[in-house]
Amino acid sequence: MSPKITTELLKQLRQAMKSPKYVQEPVQAYIVPSGDAHQSEYIAPCDCRRAFISGFDGSAGTAIVTEQHAAMWTDGRYFLQAAHQMDNNWTLMKMGLKDTPTQEDWLVSVLPEASKVGVDPFIIPADQWKRMSKALKSAGHDLVPVKENLIDTVWVDCPQRPCKPLITLDLSYTGVSWRDKIVALRSKMAERKVLWFVVTALDEVAWLFNLRGSDVEYNPVFFAYAVIGMNTIRLFIDGDRVMDPAVREHLQLDSSLEPEFRIQVVPYGSILAELQAVGAGLSPKEKVWLSDKASYALTEAIPKAYRYLTPYTPICIAKAVKNAAETDGMRRAHIKDAVALCELFNWLEKEVVPKGTVTEIIAADKAEEFRSQQKDFVELSFATISSTGPNGAIIHYKPVPETNRTLSVNEIYLLDSGAQYKDGTTDVTRTMHFGTPSAYEKECFTYVLKGHIAVSAAIFPNGTKGHLLDSFARSALWDCGLDYLHGTGHGVGSFLNVHEGPCGISYKTFADEPLEAGMVLSDEPGYYEDGSFGIRIENVVLVIPAETKYNFKNRGSLTFEPLTLVPIQTKMIDVNLLTQKECHWVNDYHQKCREVIGAELERQGRREALQWLLRETEPLKVQ
Amino acid sequence: MSPKITTELLKQLRQAMKSPKYVQEPVQAYIVPSGDAHQSEYIAPCDCRRAFISGFDGSAGTAIVTEQHAAMWTDGRYFLQAAHQMDNNWTLMKMGLKDTPTQEDWLVSVLPEASKVGVDPFIIPADQWKRMSKALKSAGHDLVPVKENLIDTVWVDCPQRPCKPLITLDLSYTGVSWRDKIVALRSKMAERKVLWFVVTALDEVAWLFNLRGSDVEYNPVFFAYAVIGMNTIRLFIDGDRVMDPAVREHLQLDSSLEPEFRIQVVPYGSILAELQAVGAGLSPKEKVWLSDKASYALTEAIPKAYRYLTPYTPICIAKAVKNAAETDGMRRAHIKDAVALCELFNWLEKEVVPKGTVTEIIAADKAEEFRSQQKDFVELSFATISSTGPNGAIIHYKPVPETNRTLSVNEIYLLDSGAQYKDGTTDVTRTMHFGTPSAYEKECFTYVLKGHIAVSAAIFPNGTKGHLLDSFARSALWDCGLDYLHGTGHGVGSFLNVHEGPCGISYKTFADEPLEAGMVLSDEPGYYEDGSFGIRIENVVLVIPAETKYNFKNRGSLTFEPLTLVPIQTKMIDVNLLTQKECHWVNDYHQKCREVIGAELERQGRREALQWLLRETEPLKVQ
Repeated sequence: MSPKITTELLKQLRQAMKSPKYVQEPVQAYIVPSGDAHQSEYIAPCDCRRAFISGFDGSAGTAIVTEQHAAMWTDGRYFLQAAHQMDNNWTLMKMGLKDTPTQEDWLVSVLPEASKVGVDPFIIPADQWKRMSKALKSAGHDLVPVKENLIDTVWVDCPQRPCKPLITLDLSYTGVSWRDKIVALRSKMAERKVLWFVVTALDEVAWLFNLRGSDVEYNPVFFAYAVIGMNTIRLFIDGDRVMDPAVREHLQLDSSLEPEFRIQVVPYGSILAELQAVGAGLSPKEKVWLSDKASYALTEAIPKAYRYLTPYTPICIAKAVKNAAETDGMRRAHIKDAVALCELFNWLEKEVVPKGTVTEIIAADKAEEFRSQQKDFVELSFATISSTGPNGAIIHYKPVPETNRTLSVNEIYLLDSGAQYKDGTTDVTRTMHFGTPSAYEKECFTYVLKGHIAVSAAIFPNGTKGHLLDSFARSALWDCGLDYLHGTGHGVGSFLNVHEGPCGISYKTFADEPLEAGMVLSDEPGYYEDGSFGIRIENVVLVIPAETKYNFKNRGSLTFEPLTLVPIQTKMIDVNLLTQKECHWVNDYHQKCREVIGAELERQGRREALQWLLRETEPLKVQ
Repeated sequence: MSPKITTELLKQLRQAMKSPKYVQEPVQAYIVPSGDAHQSEYIAPCDCRRAFISGFDGSAGTAIVTEQHAAMWTDGRYFLQAAHQMDNNWTLMKMGLKDTPTQEDWLVSVLPEASKVGVDPFIIPADQWKRMSKALKSAGHDLVPVKENLIDTVWVDCPQRPCKPLITLDLSYTGVSWRDKIVALRSKMAERKVLWFVVTALDEVAWLFNLRGSDVEYNPVFFAYAVIGMNTIRLFIDGDRVMDPAVREHLQLDSSLEPEFRIQVVPYGSILAELQAVGAGLSPKEKVWLSDKASYALTEAIPKAYRYLTPYTPICIAKAVKNAAETDGMRRAHIKDAVALCELFNWLEKEVVPKGTVTEIIAADKAEEFRSQQKDFVELSFATISSTGPNGAIIHYKPVPETNRTLSVNEIYLLDSGAQYKDGTTDVTRTMHFGTPSAYEKECFTYVLKGHIAVSAAIFPNGTKGHLLDSFARSALWDCGLDYLHGTGHGVGSFLNVHEGPCGISYKTFADEPLEAGMVLSDEPGYYEDGSFGIRIENVVLVIPAETKYNFKNRGSLTFEPLTLVPIQTKMIDVNLLTQKECHWVNDYHQKCREVIGAELERQGRREALQWLLRETEPLKVQ
């Protein structure tokens, strides 16, 4: 991976920062956040402005360019990748380390007096604007909205915004009709006494209308906004996508519905004007509900007194709690996904060991091939992390020809991959060795496994927030002086984004919502030895009620059920480091893999993969 | 405990809320926070306004009185106590439970339109004012400062503000002179580019000047403020206390010091006027540093543009990290404290079992008697929680004649107590049974012990915040569906407040500062069965560097060393529920109690208590 040369681009950007064509007054710094106008984590190519200007294309990062400097803030998952992808024009700001300044502090330290700092008001979330603006103001600077995106002005071959066909999902997948979702949303609006609700996140629009798209790779979403009133529904969406008869029928656009369920289809680009009109027409006490992460531009369209902002929208919370149809679908998706991975690992063992011709890219492609053979496969749910040896230590690594290593019997192989099926989303990491792992590798793997089990088997009272479970995943590593610089788990959508709120398991956030039965998260502790190897063990898990002896005085108990059912390589386990309880967990888990995935492999006539599964799920000897 | 009858008082308060004598316009609600003008947790009798108006005298709670309602917010420690102490005029708002409204939400739900809500601006912290004011404003109401405290207007026999003599501490206790503390503070001020620092917390004033007092029971502090400039030191303190020759010498009031170390002594009551003068004299870019928990009145004295507010002051952080002299002192204090408790428990066993004449109050008094025999004993560090049977389930119980139970061989006895010695502060809880505990009592005790050990033996990387350890304390309880509604640990001062920031171990806060070697905390999980018994096991522990196999890539590791060395009753332990590692922890701990406390009991010639110690520290049989 050679870094992107950005000298010329930065020169042009710095000219744009002073050009009266784009700015009323020159800006001394320009902020390039990661997201798009919907604050998406994964974005369409036309929105990859931060990657374009810097070369760093990880999923999280903020660039700030001043007249003298160019700096990039990213987190522990991306330190190595960012360092590889950026040239010397850029300074890497390692978030989470003690001595790394915040963006605000850094700006204050480098800016000349009374500077203006520009940002695209559609790209920056309102809460970030507020924080940044306050900090800058208190140091004598100003944060200013720059209407024209300055990256776009220097991006000559910027791709078009995608506008792909929509997929309709019927009740067998969603469990609840879009009409019932609107009814539930309006009842939440009535509870909070708000008259309007603005849906800005792409996955929230998709979930609300039981529609999916493919505008953003890996994320079955489409560019749209919605504004829901107590008697109106406006969907802001472009193209002739709603002319498709299946979509028209799904949305009942041609039926004579009760007025409060009639969907008005409005052009995507008119959202700001429409919101400004809504804002202008409000009477005192009439409120508009927005996520506090909605863009500054849309938030400002509603006068401050009329805004009702919350960190998580009622859609975000409802979407996180999967209903029976959705959990059934997630289970089906994970069974198919496990079948594909058993095939893959069986194939790898046959190819890697004797031939030594399988590269990271070939392995990733093969994984996709096996997945695509499964029913209702749509696409991958993220770029496959297929990494061997030192590449495994790059936490969000994606193999490219320049870095592509060959799998061997001498190195640990880490595969973090997942898919979108029409019935559910998967995300699974397995770490394996095709030869003989060293004692140290086994030791580290076993600590990670202990952490994985500690979370997966945790029992906790109803109302517990996920972040309170994060240390369980680290305890075994901590005891030996090891740790990993990423969170332990994220919410997972149901044929939707592989990362979703409002729940998670991380030391970094305190604002997660309490865990509830029906929520789906990942459980993925890891350990990374820079320059040598990476280990991660990840299952997707479902929050379920637990049975406990005393049941928290009827407050109720929760625990997790693994949805992912793929063998964990026992060769990598140092059994002496496991407790009896942990050994039993592994054996029970493998027994379930045998039963559930074994039956499906049998049904699909995949005999060789079934043999592999049986071999890999031989019980550990409990000490 | 019969509730306080508050009908007449509330009537008078509601009159005051409308009286032009006190308010420009009538207020429809009046907030009575817990604290004093220094936001102290423990307060002098003259500041116990919330207890006076409601009857509820726990350490935490906020009362709000409207024309129709009177409501009290408090946390899980005090649900039972508050319910017992308040009459039917009051509604108990159980904080931490899902359906309990916040004060703001409740006010909005009960107030008539466009109401005014009054509060004493000296009592409410600025951050609370801000939050409350914003919430009220957005619902059309106003938070207004009421200069005269309205409780004081109806409190006819309100006690005088105390003004007791000061104690000076020399270097052998403090390790650092007050001059060096001022130098360190000024260097922090220079780092942050602030010109003035306002010391508002009583323990911060005491720590900074190496002085102690006794204005507030259990807390060796005195009523004072300080304002530190880059070249000036102003101490706001009343009475002839600084006329004491020892104090004059300690503060070098009569020496010809360099001007920047000359302390100007100013009357306590002049702080507001002085701060207003400071505020009025500031030039642009000149900042004044205050805690964001300082009172609204003092914060408002500094124009907004000149304020530099932080959640924890540099004094608070420096004070938390004990130096060698302080940790040595803490160790000495804990040895003496353990001697006193060995004497007490030996005495209790001899008295309770055969005679049955020892009440909770007698036991508490006896504990104080034994403590007071120790060198440098000053006073207790909080009201002794001496509770047996159902009283043990009242988390911050204090025995009074109405509730006083007799210790017996049939009930669990919980003693949470501590003392102020000139060399350190102690806080220890032991739970014991003088007869034969039931299997269920032993089971619960053992889970609590497992949680206590999980925290005490935890190893974690440098920079970890205490709240990340909280779940370790709960895991064994959670597994069986049990929990406790309080945090696991608080910072402990060095001959200062028994509760201090900025560190702690709790699920409730995210704003704690990272743990550092030298910090001192409590480790006190519990379990409470309402109406039956309470269990808590509390040690004070010191954060120390840990040795780990891989040392977090030189990031460094931390763990805890118990300073408290008092036997944990092995009779209460169900050994079958302990792991080998936990058994070894108990045995190692008891071995250390034998060595350290045994030697001191020997030295003090306390033979009987020594025999008791040896009996109680017999090793568990490791399975």
